Amino acid sequence: MSGNTFGKLFCVTSFGESHGPAIGCVVDGCPPGLALAEADIQRDLDRRKPGTSRHVTQRRESDTVEILSGVFEGRTTGTPISLMIDNVDQRSKDYAEIAGAYRPGHADWTYQAKYGHRDWRGSGRASARETASRVAAGGVARLVIPEVRIRAFLVELGGDAIDRNAFDDAEIDANPFFCPDAAAAARWEDLVDEARKAGSSLGAIVECVATGVPPGWGAPLYAKLDAELAAAMMSINAVKGVEIGDGFAASRLRGEENADGMRAGPDGKPHFLSNHAGGVLGGISSGQPVVVRVAFKPTSSIATPQPTVDQAGAETEIAVKGRHDPCVGIRGAPVVEAMMALVLADQKLLHRAQCGP
Amino acid sequence: MSGNTFGKLFCVTSFGESHGPAIGCVVDGCPPGLALAEADIQRDLDRRKPGTSRHVTQRRESDTVEILSGVFEGRTTGTPISLMIDNVDQRSKDYAEIAGAYRPGHADWTYQAKYGHRDWRGSGRASARETASRVAAGGVARLVIPEVRIRAFLVELGGDAIDRNAFDDAEIDANPFFCPDAAAAARWEDLVDEARKAGSSLGAIVECVATGVPPGWGAPLYAKLDAELAAAMMSINAVKGVEIGDGFAASRLRGEENADGMRAGPDGKPHFLSNHAGGVLGGISSGQPVVVRVAFKPTSSIATPQPTVDQAGAETEIAVKGRHDPCVGIRGAPVVEAMMALVLADQKLLHRAQCGP
Amino acid sequence: MSGNTFGKLFCVTSFGESHGPAIGCVVDGCPPGLALAEADIQRDLDRRKPGTSRHVTQRRESDTVEILSGVFEGRTTGTPISLMIDNVDQRSKDYAEIAGAYRPGHADWTYQAKYGHRDWRGSGRASARETASRVAAGGVARLVIPEVRIRAFLVELGGDAIDRNAFDDAEIDANPFFCPDAAAAARWEDLVDEARKAGSSLGAIVECVATGVPPGWGAPLYAKLDAELAAAMMSINAVKGVEIGDGFAASRLRGEENADGMRAGPDGKPHFLSNHAGGVLGGISSGQPVVVRVAFKPTSSIATPQPTVDQAGAETEIAVKGRHDPCVGIRGAPVVEAMMALVLADQKLLHRAQCGP
Amino acid sequence: MSGNTFGKLFCVTSFGESHGPAIGCVVDGCPPGLALAEADIQRDLDRRKPGTSRHVTQRRESDTVEILSGVFEGRTTGTPISLMIDNVDQRSKDYAEIAGAYRPGHADWTYQAKYGHRDWRGSGRASARETASRVAAGGVARLVIPEVRIRAFLVELGGDAIDRNAFDDAEIDANPFFCPDAAAAARWEDLVDEARKAGSSLGAIVECVATGVPPGWGAPLYAKLDAELAAAMMSINAVKGVEIGDGFAASRLRGEENADGMRAGPDGKPHFLSNHAGGVLGGISSGQPVVVRVAFKPTSSIATPQPTVDQAGAETEIAVKGRHDPCVGIRGAPVVEAMMALVLADQKLLHRAQCGP
Repeated sequence: MSGNTFGKLFCVTSFGESHGPAIGCVVDGCPPGLALAEADIQRDLDRRKPGTSRHVTQRRESDTVEILSGVFEGRTTGTPISLMIDNVDQRSKDYAEIAGAYRPGHADWTYQAKYGHRDWRGSGRASARETASRVAAGGVARLVIPEVRIRAFLVELGGDAIDRNAFDDAEIDANPFFCPDAAAAARWEDLVDEARKAGSSLGAIVECVATGVPPGWGAPLYAKLDAELAAAMMSINAVKGVEIGDGFAASRLRGEENADGMRAGPDGKPHFLSNHAGGVLGGISSGQPVVVRVAFKPTSSIATPQPTVDQAGAETEIAVKGRHDPCVGIRGAPVVEAMMALVLADQKLLHRAQCGP
Repeated sequence: MSGNTFGKLFCVTSFGESHGPAIGCVVDGCPPGLALAEADIQRDLDRRKPGTSRHVTQRRESDTVEILSGVFEGRTTGTPISLMIDNVDQRSKDYAEIAGAYRPGHADWTYQAKYGHRDWRGSGRASARETASRVAAGGVARLVIPEVRIRAFLVELGGDAIDRNAFDDAEIDANPFFCPDAAAAARWEDLVDEARKAGSSLGAIVECVATGVPPGWGAPLYAKLDAELAAAMMSINAVKGVEIGDGFAASRLRGEENADGMRAGPDGKPHFLSNHAGGVLGGISSGQPVVVRVAFKPTSSIATPQPTVDQAGAETEIAVKGRHDPCVGIRGAPVVEAMMALVLADQKLLHRAQCGP
Repeated sequence: MSGNTFGKLFCVTSFGESHGPAIGCVVDGCPPGLALAEADIQRDLDRRKPGTSRHVTQRRESDTVEILSGVFEGRTTGTPISLMIDNVDQRSKDYAEIAGAYRPGHADWTYQAKYGHRDWRGSGRASARETASRVAAGGVARLVIPEVRIRAFLVELGGDAIDRNAFDDAEIDANPFFCPDAAAAARWEDLVDEARKAGSSLGAIVECVATGVPPGWGAPLYAKLDAELAAAMMSINAVKGVEIGDGFAASRLRGEENADGMRAGPDGKPHFLSNHAGGVLGGISSGQPVVVRVAFKPTSSIATPQPTVDQAGAETEIAVKGRHDPCVGIRGAPVVEAMMALVLADQKLLHRAQCGP
Repeated sequence: MSGNTFGKLFCVTSFGESHGPAIGCVVDGCPPGLALAEADIQRDLDRRKPGTSRHVTQRRESDTVEILSGVFEGRTTGTPISLMIDNVDQRSKDYAEIAGAYRPGHADWTYQAKYGHRDWRGSGRASARETASRVAAGGVARLVIPEVRIRAFLVELGGDAIDRNAFDDAEIDANPFFCPDAAAAARWEDLVDEARKAGSSLGAIVECVATGVPPGWGAPLYAKLDAELAAAMMSINAVKGVEIGDGFAASRLRGEENADGMRAGPDGKPHFLSNHAGGVLGGISSGQPVVVRVAFKPTSSIATPQPTVDQAGAETEIAVKGRHDPCVGIRGAPVVEAMMALVLADQKLLHRAQCGP
């Protein structure tokens, strides 16, 4: 029930602040007997970690994960898996001047209003650094769902969309933007450079597709698969919108346009003629690819001065220094993948519980 | 943990199928001492109930709620409040022909795939009729948060958007579309009539604004207020997208455009210069209006024949008869309000638990 | 999370007061496809219902259960099963005089202290009548665990214990005390008659044995099988103690006396030489019979006057009238069985979720 | 929902094996603004730690706790508090010979049966070493309930009970047994010495009293305060029984003996004439001291050889070497205190949530 635990059966409890000694998480409920080594997790972490290109934050974090429990002789034991990542590069002094003033778009004011006391260093608990814990846990979750392939990529950056006809899966890992369209990736280099130099920032839309999800995962009513995905994605820092399948565009279709007709499939299951639904019907997976799109707002930490107030209530201006991502949506892609993995691993276990193997 | 229970402290457990004897819910965790009568709940139910105009389903349900427990001498006792609504107008024969064939866009196939056995009468548990239970529970939730005013309205129907400059709160209850723009409401009459006559259907976008939410509700990390809202809204039948504040549009703004600057407010709290964030920062309410937009797909039950398969795997066509809403998004407005109320009531209690009065 | 919901995957949400229109519960998470009719549940209810002998309350309740949802064509659908039991014989006037004074041993004062407003008719929500909902839900739970046989019986009444050497399973249903020892049952007739006539009441100890539980159910750490059982049993009205296996007596054994040695079993699994542990080791079932003992205090509603205070704080005396069980532990036996069934059904699903079929 | 998380609002998620690099826990849901330093927690840990007398295990663990998150400038921030305790003295070789054979009374066989793969070093996750995490978390919980004083002590060891008339609170911390009766403590020295030298072990009964609990904590129905306590205590290693107030003895009293009569108290609240109920009525605290008794079985790790089988199914004998507590119930006292603190802190928050300040 706790706000820092995610999942119902495959549960992740996360801890840590941006500038404390460490961040990490405890993964509980993992099936036993799965081969797991730190390298399995590190692979995902390395895709998210800072400093991989000039388009992301230059904070220097190795993001090296250590497994403290739950694995014996290279396999999971079914007991809690504790994952820890030391914080290495903490420049708290970058934040000293913002200790007292609320940065627009940040959680400074709301944490203060809620708790009356907050760790202001590097956004504390509200830092996007916490998403490393999600990615680490997601690395474990992937092992639970080997039948599923999860792929996240940017389909829009700063309002500039990819050309769907130019979609090339191999391109996603070949540029710093997780962009499946080489031409768009080239344009985005300029967009992000410009924004960074201007002391501004950009938003992005990440799409995530999970193939191989069998029909039957998810549940009515409040635990719909799409509701779980919506919560998972909206819980990521800087996310402001989530849609499944055609999403908002579906609201502009007529019934007969939106219907995903069925024909007889080779395996006795229906073969769908389209996937406007994004792989979820009535909250339960249909066997089609599960498609989610996630809107990231532009990074709130910008060098351009913004009007604000300080803790004493006095009006001031703030220009956020430090080493920030000009577009948090970029590093959001591996995080979106992790959340998809966490949701699906949980759903697989939930389905098996109620409906058997 | 169960899929038919919503909420953490203010909990709603829902039951019932479209064509069973009754639907209803149990509301647990309600604070004691609140004045509650059936009329308080009926008011909301009447806004959602079928047959109120030609633009919604003509099924005849009085949707009369009965309180079976949890209220004594007109006030809540803190024990479970059981709410029951009899099903009156069940024309199961309308559904006989669809017992074996999967309706596109419906949960027929996925329920069959998950459970291997399903109540096909009127969509069974997957029927939008279940949303009456949500509205009933929402009526109780409103009593828990008297400081909050919740208002949902359609901002788009069939792709035709309202004029924000023509927004008139008083208009919302004056037309059958919960439309705040009288001119748009007039256009929508024609749109919906046309779709209905064509055997088609339309989608819609519902916006919901909650004013009076104090700063501090919600929580990091996975229990962000916006994550809870996203799950709540996405759990409603036919919803395919959710956004908070500027939502997807925020991903197209630059950092300085999206920043909600602050000035000193009259009460010592910050006065925000804009509300791109939709009243939530870092998962916690900021004190600004909480703004959510919800995309409803066009009704899947349409008279236009669609290709499909039957349970035996044979290809067929299906034209859905029965008395269906040409645009489920219309009656979605009171349901969205109810879900907002349920989330906020829960969050108020959660906040009080951790942070005190 | 709600206080009136029991279970993690196989969940029961209960509602209703002693003198309201009805009591009941919603069973969520039940596997689909199980044959279920009202008669399956009624069988258990009839064992618990009032008026079956002079040794239990003479309130006249048929305790007829109605299934409102979740079953279609005689089989569970995997959706919530709503069970309702009308309250028939409500003599609220019996309680009028106690509206204002707190009965010793009852929840009158504590409900008042907690909620500030309570339904005082027949103990309201605190009435043992609620246990009918548990028994009804337990009837469904039994269907989930056909491999398990659950048997509860009284081993002590009013301090008079059975002779273990005279244990006869067939005797349990042959006397009004669920007593496996015919001689003890004969003695208890006199004990209970005497207490009833004296305006007094007696306590009892119920033992419950579940055979057929496979090794592996339960989990470390806080979700130990025995911890779940302890909570389940202690949640029953009038229960003050729970022990597993040898329980308190184990604390008086030496290590070598308490050890359950193992020999090679015929099926490759260990054959235990004794069962001091009561079938649970480290929180996980061992494959041996699961043995729980539950202590019921004497009924608090007695005709003998007791000193107390009223709501205004004035001192008074109270003699509880009405039709009360002279020993609530008797009807406790079917309730203990139901709680055992609920816990085991839940544990079976939880185990299947994490560890597979 | 996860088996390694305890609590509903004040939540503790524990991790770690006896012979892994570290154990620890994440405390989530703690109110903000509480003064917290490692010393606050260390105090409790030192009472539980090994090697404090010859009557407990001689394993050398400093049990030094480190706070990794959730505290800023000496006060809690409301975000997760991560507590870590390094494992220092790991003599895995002591366990090498038991890798393959199941120790009677231990979880070796049941872990193997459940998970098919287990960390056998020092009982792995099933080690009582885990209780250090509970004690650490309990140290935080105490800060949440400053109005409550919690005191646990042994009332029986090896079947030898204290003299209640000789009860001296000051004595509890003056002997190695947490024994409030000096004469009994002297006798227990001999008892434990004898058992240790004989390669045997002894059980114990721990009583825990919480004073200062206001009326109103707890809740009907399945979340009764006593049900929560029963689960909490039964989840401790080696515990086989729990009772509240008079517990099993209450089942041998007559109704009028067991009734806790009331007189007018000085503060307008009832003054109880006795406390057979142990401070809980109807699952809700009455304002009287909350009294729990907990039965610990004798330590299962004994040097006396026991018959058992190995993983291959062959019969063998096992004599458990290593440095074990001759009576685990002794070090159980601080653990019982910790669980009491965890339950009460959680209940305080839950009560505040529903019923306000």
